[in-house]
Amino acid sequence: MHKQRGEKLWYIPDGYIPELSSGNLTSHESICVVNTASEDALLKITIFFEDREPMEDIMVVVSARRTKHIRTSSLHIEGVPIPVGVPYAIEVLSDIPIIVQYSRLDSTQAENALMSVMAYPIKSER
Amino acid sequence: MHKQRGEKLWYIPDGYIPELSSGNLTSHESICVVNTASEDALLKITIFFEDREPMEDIMVVVSARRTKHIRTSSLHIEGVPIPVGVPYAIEVLSDIPIIVQYSRLDSTQAENALMSVMAYPIKSER
Amino acid sequence: MHKQRGEKLWYIPDGYIPELSSGNLTSHESICVVNTASEDALLKITIFFEDREPMEDIMVVVSARRTKHIRTSSLHIEGVPIPVGVPYAIEVLSDIPIIVQYSRLDSTQAENALMSVMAYPIKSER
Amino acid sequence: MHKQRGEKLWYIPDGYIPELSSGNLTSHESICVVNTASEDALLKITIFFEDREPMEDIMVVVSARRTKHIRTSSLHIEGVPIPVGVPYAIEVLSDIPIIVQYSRLDSTQAENALMSVMAYPIKSER
Repeated sequence: MHKQRGEKLWYIPDGYIPELSSGNLTSHESICVVNTASEDALLKITIFFEDREPMEDIMVVVSARRTKHIRTSSLHIEGVPIPVGVPYAIEVLSDIPIIVQYSRLDSTQAENALMSVMAYPIKSER
Repeated sequence: MHKQRGEKLWYIPDGYIPELSSGNLTSHESICVVNTASEDALLKITIFFEDREPMEDIMVVVSARRTKHIRTSSLHIEGVPIPVGVPYAIEVLSDIPIIVQYSRLDSTQAENALMSVMAYPIKSER
Repeated sequence: MHKQRGEKLWYIPDGYIPELSSGNLTSHESICVVNTASEDALLKITIFFEDREPMEDIMVVVSARRTKHIRTSSLHIEGVPIPVGVPYAIEVLSDIPIIVQYSRLDSTQAENALMSVMAYPIKSER
Repeated sequence: MHKQRGEKLWYIPDGYIPELSSGNLTSHESICVVNTASEDALLKITIFFEDREPMEDIMVVVSARRTKHIRTSSLHIEGVPIPVGVPYAIEVLSDIPIIVQYSRLDSTQAENALMSVMAYPIKSER
């Protein structure tokens, strides 16, 4: 059995899907997860906005001993995606410990720009 | 009732508002906050400089179950904003736990550059 | 004797070796390690993928009182390198405490883009 | 009396002073420190290399209730600066708690690229 590593609850306050792309690369964000354990991780993702109610409990599975780089543009609730060009924040809740990083590629202008942060972990009471 | 998450006191040592913009995007910084709780968060922001007294206690509200991406250029005390082109540092103090990330878009040159960090949390004594 | 600093186990969920380069700089990633101790550190690096079994236990030595900026393109198992253009995640396990940062230079388009994160440390039971 | 905040010992594994600049901005790195306390902070900075002995105990003062954004190109021991184009790592030791962030602007190519990380803190035994 491989050990579970990380935490079950993570936050990324600065989410934003750029409206435009140019050049060879498409603007996008990724929520990058690694699951080191021998069992699958079931994630519930919640999206917070500035001016409306949260989108709650978008479900994603990350398989045992695998990584998953989740495009935020692929997330939706009953076919409704996260709106582009709108500031939001991300909560990632998992049933087992995982590790979460967030990266954004912005190609609004001709050349691309990159940013990345480790998500902020909430330590479980142990 | 939704749980409070994060910490009440956060620091960002590298603040800087670029003087110039070019291309389609305006240079700017954002202090990105998420408030997961069922009550509003009242923030007091303090700005530290290299060569003068701090600007203290700029007030911002982040509503319950919302995020707020605060442009630093919007912060002011009695109409006096943070000066551009000057190194500074940021303290964010909240009355309830929140999570804070800092991002900068620099479009001084024709193409944009991005950077982002999770702010540094000071753990409350509990 | 110089003190050991940091942790023995670190994770970077967002690994990616760009396929293309242009301009003066080659796209690359680096796992940057500092070993503050008076003895060498022996690292075992494991690579996790989205759709295949992990590459396990790639060995790297970081000498006493030295840093090492490890190009991920230099890592291999029996001559097989990490594939380019594929999302992956990185585990760094060391026999003594170290500190680990991850940086990526992407020059897919004419101008370069940079991102960097401190790796996520797993605290040893002490 | 204003409270001390942060930690006394911080690490940045990925240091690098670009050799070239182009366009309007000069490539540079900054070690950004904020000192929230009512007394000055005395820093000793040590630089680790891949292939030679460390440069130890470069002294810097950060005044009470001030920030300082320290250009690494300004650091030297008896007139000898940190070499450009060479990978290195940074240790920042302070006599009182501070908070440390590291940022790099790379303008090797025509447009600038930015990266930033919070330095890695070593928690004091308390």
